[in-house]
Amino acid sequence: MSRKLVILTEGHTNPHTAKTASCIIRYRRDEVVALLDATQAGKTTQDLLGVGGDLPVVSKLGEADGANTLLLGIAPPGGKIPASWRAIILEAIAKKMNILAGLHDFLSDDPEFVAAAEKNGVTLTDVRKNAERTIARRVGLRSDCLRVLTVGHDCSVGKMVTSVELTHALKARGQAAKFIATGQTGIMVEGDGCPIDRVIADFVSGSVEKMILEHQHNDILIVEGQGSLIHPSYSAVTLGLLHGALPHAMVMCYEVGRDCITGVEHVKIPPLAKIIQLNEMMASITQASRVIGIAMNSRRVNADEAEQERERVRAELGLPVCDVIRHGPDELVDAILAFKATDGWKAGE
Amino acid sequence: MSRKLVILTEGHTNPHTAKTASCIIRYRRDEVVALLDATQAGKTTQDLLGVGGDLPVVSKLGEADGANTLLLGIAPPGGKIPASWRAIILEAIAKKMNILAGLHDFLSDDPEFVAAAEKNGVTLTDVRKNAERTIARRVGLRSDCLRVLTVGHDCSVGKMVTSVELTHALKARGQAAKFIATGQTGIMVEGDGCPIDRVIADFVSGSVEKMILEHQHNDILIVEGQGSLIHPSYSAVTLGLLHGALPHAMVMCYEVGRDCITGVEHVKIPPLAKIIQLNEMMASITQASRVIGIAMNSRRVNADEAEQERERVRAELGLPVCDVIRHGPDELVDAILAFKATDGWKAGE
Repeated sequence: MSRKLVILTEGHTNPHTAKTASCIIRYRRDEVVALLDATQAGKTTQDLLGVGGDLPVVSKLGEADGANTLLLGIAPPGGKIPASWRAIILEAIAKKMNILAGLHDFLSDDPEFVAAAEKNGVTLTDVRKNAERTIARRVGLRSDCLRVLTVGHDCSVGKMVTSVELTHALKARGQAAKFIATGQTGIMVEGDGCPIDRVIADFVSGSVEKMILEHQHNDILIVEGQGSLIHPSYSAVTLGLLHGALPHAMVMCYEVGRDCITGVEHVKIPPLAKIIQLNEMMASITQASRVIGIAMNSRRVNADEAEQERERVRAELGLPVCDVIRHGPDELVDAILAFKATDGWKAGE
Repeated sequence: MSRKLVILTEGHTNPHTAKTASCIIRYRRDEVVALLDATQAGKTTQDLLGVGGDLPVVSKLGEADGANTLLLGIAPPGGKIPASWRAIILEAIAKKMNILAGLHDFLSDDPEFVAAAEKNGVTLTDVRKNAERTIARRVGLRSDCLRVLTVGHDCSVGKMVTSVELTHALKARGQAAKFIATGQTGIMVEGDGCPIDRVIADFVSGSVEKMILEHQHNDILIVEGQGSLIHPSYSAVTLGLLHGALPHAMVMCYEVGRDCITGVEHVKIPPLAKIIQLNEMMASITQASRVIGIAMNSRRVNADEAEQERERVRAELGLPVCDVIRHGPDELVDAILAFKATDGWKAGE
């Protein structure tokens, strides 16, 4: 039986909080039956999230015809299940639906959900659950597998989407490329990966290195970035990822107009040039690594403004710049292939 | 009933692997009855670890007169219990001893240990166990509590010992200072703290910030560093700690003669000046922070060599330098108090 999803975003259907929903709709549209948010019923996901075309927003589980799985579609800070969602989750279980979640609070640790799931013969899947105990060793890395990491000036700026779009485009050009998912949504999209923000701190780099070693028979790995080196709350995840992935090249992702750090809005985001400098320094401790392009997320501005910003950043940084959704990823794909052709990176490790 | 410890280091009694044992002996000598290592029985801990005077190394639990607690005294990479130790731990439990451990493998997750402990009415304490779920918010930090973080060029170079010695010396000079323990040994020494390398990556900075908020009624917090920003395996822990502690000043700890990274010995440690630069850059994103002194660990060299090295590093970096054990911590304490007196740091946050 194939997976037919109804995505729960009740009360949270906006592009920022419902980023799991947005990305599943973007990359797994054929599996999605409806979005569930009684406060927005009657609209489409295109209206609210900018993706999905005529995919409906419904007010009741019963209106999601044919759905067999409830996916929790938000990524709140700290990853907690909103209290008001309990009844909806229990109703879905009673309707014999499987539940799929990526939160820090595990469904499978909740006695009420576990008992209900057993009674109804359905599964509770916590994508963030892991038992990672691998320490990074920096041994056995294939010298001619190009590792590219997306990095960012903040969390939730489009590192996952950029990584997926780059991987798709590289494959379309005949490259043996693989997307390395490091967050719950990326894992749901790709079908494999590791939720590194949920790994015990000592093993973050090791869990990333393990994925690299597993997939380095590909010629290019595009590794999904997490957080930001300048984020006061999540920089541990970011640096562990950077040192576990040991990228030869990086793509810097940023959102046009964002100037405060998500979750700590009283702290300003430094200029992009500064963030590039910090990433290059921390990535280049044992081998050279540099930012080779900029992925701008221009969803909050119009086409003219996006074009002006693109030119401004190109001129300021001397790097290729594009919005992988608005402009397509070709300019960054060209940059990756040009970098790959230089061969100098193979001497690194 | 007061705690009387026998410390288990069977087969691992050297200053590097048995660093938990060394530090407990150094700072909790009055609680320790003996060290247990049948391969070294008859020697003293002073012979093997350089601390403890005539504290005996015994070959059997029965020789540790009056001990009521077995402490597992090593800190191996990955934090696993050596397989050969199971029988010793079970024997201690059968002798009605409590067990105290700081490993990643929890005694309290092991059905055989749990059953034996229940049967014998003893406790299993896993110092690394935690349920941290706090996200760093950068809100509520007291502007006139000076935060000093020990940082390092590698793991296991003496950040904990430096932090404890600095705190003791500051208190002796009448300062309201507090040691903030962030690792299992520091917690055993201080009696409180958080084992941040065992915290889920998303919550590392938050768990540190929580301790800062709890103890900032003191005038000076000396925060125990972990790992190194340049360590390929553990840098996630280090950066999360740096951003959670948001130090005004840092003390750089290094071991004389160490040139390869612990656990990844094929990777060279960069020069100290470079590591200071990286730490200052990553610490100064939102407020200025700088390294104000160097704690050298000179245990592998003689007094003359230590003095030469001290002069060399002083001249190279223009900073106060001392080995807090060999020379005492006064030079670094002077540097902290001089920095505190400048007042400029209070404008930071």
